[in-house]
Amino acid sequence: MLVTGGAAFIGSNLTDALLKRGAQVRIVDNLSSGTLENIQEHLDAGRVEFIEGDLLDPEVTRRAVEGMQVVFHLAADHGGRGYVDLHQVECSTNLILDSLVFKTCYEQKVEKVVFASSGCVYPNFKQTDPGEIVYLTEDAVGPPYDADHIYGWAKLMGELTLEAYCKQYGMKSASCRFFTVYGPRGVENHAVIAMIARAFLEQNPFEVWGTGEQIRNWTYIDDIVEGTILAAEKIDDARAVNLGTMERIQVMEAVKEVLRYTNRSLEIATQPHMPTGPMNRVADNSLAKSLLGWEPQVKFFDGLHRTIDWYFKNKKREEVQAIFARMLTER
Amino acid sequence: MLVTGGAAFIGSNLTDALLKRGAQVRIVDNLSSGTLENIQEHLDAGRVEFIEGDLLDPEVTRRAVEGMQVVFHLAADHGGRGYVDLHQVECSTNLILDSLVFKTCYEQKVEKVVFASSGCVYPNFKQTDPGEIVYLTEDAVGPPYDADHIYGWAKLMGELTLEAYCKQYGMKSASCRFFTVYGPRGVENHAVIAMIARAFLEQNPFEVWGTGEQIRNWTYIDDIVEGTILAAEKIDDARAVNLGTMERIQVMEAVKEVLRYTNRSLEIATQPHMPTGPMNRVADNSLAKSLLGWEPQVKFFDGLHRTIDWYFKNKKREEVQAIFARMLTER
Ligand SMILES: NC(=O)c1ccc[n+]([C@@H]2O[C@H](COP(=O)([O-])OP(=O)(O)OC[C@H]3O[C@@H](n4cnc5c(N)ncnc54)[C@H](O)[C@@H]3O)[C@@H](O)[C@H]2O)c1
Ligand SMILES: NC(=O)c1ccc[n+]([C@@H]2O[C@H](COP(=O)([O-])OP(=O)(O)OC[C@H]3O[C@@H](n4cnc5c(N)ncnc54)[C@H](O)[C@@H]3O)[C@@H](O)[C@H]2O)c1
Repeated sequence: MLVTGGAAFIGSNLTDALLKRGAQVRIVDNLSSGTLENIQEHLDAGRVEFIEGDLLDPEVTRRAVEGMQVVFHLAADHGGRGYVDLHQVECSTNLILDSLVFKTCYEQKVEKVVFASSGCVYPNFKQTDPGEIVYLTEDAVGPPYDADHIYGWAKLMGELTLEAYCKQYGMKSASCRFFTVYGPRGVENHAVIAMIARAFLEQNPFEVWGTGEQIRNWTYIDDIVEGTILAAEKIDDARAVNLGTMERIQVMEAVKEVLRYTNRSLEIATQPHMPTGPMNRVADNSLAKSLLGWEPQVKFFDGLHRTIDWYFKNKKREEVQAIFARMLTER
Repeated sequence: MLVTGGAAFIGSNLTDALLKRGAQVRIVDNLSSGTLENIQEHLDAGRVEFIEGDLLDPEVTRRAVEGMQVVFHLAADHGGRGYVDLHQVECSTNLILDSLVFKTCYEQKVEKVVFASSGCVYPNFKQTDPGEIVYLTEDAVGPPYDADHIYGWAKLMGELTLEAYCKQYGMKSASCRFFTVYGPRGVENHAVIAMIARAFLEQNPFEVWGTGEQIRNWTYIDDIVEGTILAAEKIDDARAVNLGTMERIQVMEAVKEVLRYTNRSLEIATQPHMPTGPMNRVADNSLAKSLLGWEPQVKFFDGLHRTIDWYFKNKKREEVQAIFARMLTER
């Protein structure tokens, strides 16, 4: 199996799980945001094949895809909210990347393609009111479309392209719409890890982008990995399925729990002018339940504690300090 | 200047006009639907530089774009209605093509990019009722979006990508939304040329896809070329502008004029089950008027007569017969 972007947060965790199940895994990554550290153990043990290369190069893509039975396509020019809002040009290269990977999968007769899609394909106009209880069901993505910045549009184009391959040529695939994933190996451009890093650095005042009223359904990495593998096993028809919890968590609630759990008493300063994303984004996951038998196992506060424990154990103050400000809008 | 797709219908006519104005022109084309015949005269006279190559190959794209001041990006995996509806996989490769060309233009410091966009970016939901008098204004393309098949989505992504390059890095560009273009060198997968070919072949009954009630604003090639050059001269801010007439022509009206002008008395058989496209697509062209000083010069019936004259003078019966059925859904 191929994991594109396998040196990053989600891809490396997926690789761990695939190896545990006995799969033979090849990773391709250009290390633009992924790091070898995430897969070093497997590299040292000779358990994965690693190709360092840029998937925008058709020759690299061909080499990576050749001979693969299943392709998990996770590579993307992608960051957190600051990145997605401010780097639309860079995100537009995902239009190249995704279409090229899928075209190559078709040419190389891959049996199944699993695509890392995103909650960003959902219409912005359904996600404006944090007071409203809305759970996004898969069929809310349909004409007319209103995806979230070029990053979200590229994910949507990826889904539509896979549907076309399935309909026209019978190529099997599944799109997994990940909702804001967090957990070990996560990086600081995503909200949860950014909060933890601020607590770690004892930033005072502790900054919160937006008003803090935004609602999210942060989903723990192990649940995401489990759902992605189930999708590979059970979906053939290019269908898109939400992988996300139905816990509605306010950013400010998460912030307070981070401060409580880390024993920090810091002032909180909201920054309404900074990139905020939709005000209300929470998945409905009943399709994943019925189709995959999947249910998220990790409650948000539990996953948050585990992630904090991991972060505090593994990070060095100077190193976090050195990268933190930049990471908020970069990758 | 570079004309991508310069061996095709619109690109070769654009090349003629650019050469007349004294420009130095390079063409890149993989001849997947374009033909050398369209530019043979210039090739023989050494008036254009020609690169035969596939723009999905980043190395070809780099070579083609290198050193260019203006890039007219017309290459596309594109056909008529039958093609767009039935070959969505193939059209999805335009997502690669367009993003790669624009990325390369940015890297190679091209001064101005002009993109061949399309009426297919307009929301389907505004184009359903042929009885309604609607002129599509540029601002009708905005969230939520509802483009016409993956072909239309790719054009829309191209526009959004150019907007991002302009906003983020100041790269100058213009998107020209061509509306159903016809004229000499047009090919049989487009409605007007298909009608002419049916008359030429004396097809009996004369087949019409759809009910014949569909409304279009067919726009003559010389007007399209003129508008495209004006856009290159006058638009810097990645704005999209309609290039289309405001004549509302019913398919059946066009069919009858073709039969009248060619002196054919053939039965007409409508085929409502065949690919039809939107029921009502007509541009508003006031933005082009005010921004570019552009107005279409050629009335539909005049342009139609010229195109019929060209077709009847240049085509051989056996050759048309040999390709016609295939061309209706291919390219
Ligand atoms: N993290 C989330 O909350 C989240 C939510 C929804 C969807 N996703 C999607 O999941 C996938 C993985 O996300 P992640 O959080 O692990 O992010 P990430 O951006 O760190 O992972 C992308 C990986 O792809 C690699 N990559 C990027 N461009 C490449 C190229 N041209 N060639 C080869 N490798 C390339 C990067 O080096 C990185 O290792 C991405 O597709 C992302 O869009 C993530
Ligand atoms: N004809 C119309 O009515 C119309 C309407 C709206 C927009 N457009 C757009 O105008 C442009 C030109 O249209 P046309 O009618 O002349 O069509 P066309 O499809 O014949 O022209 C495309 C040209 O690009 C070339 N090409 C395709 N893929 C290529 C690749 N990968 N590398 C290099 N060359 C490649 C083809 O060989 C062809 O010469 C297209 O972008 C089309 O989408 C046309």
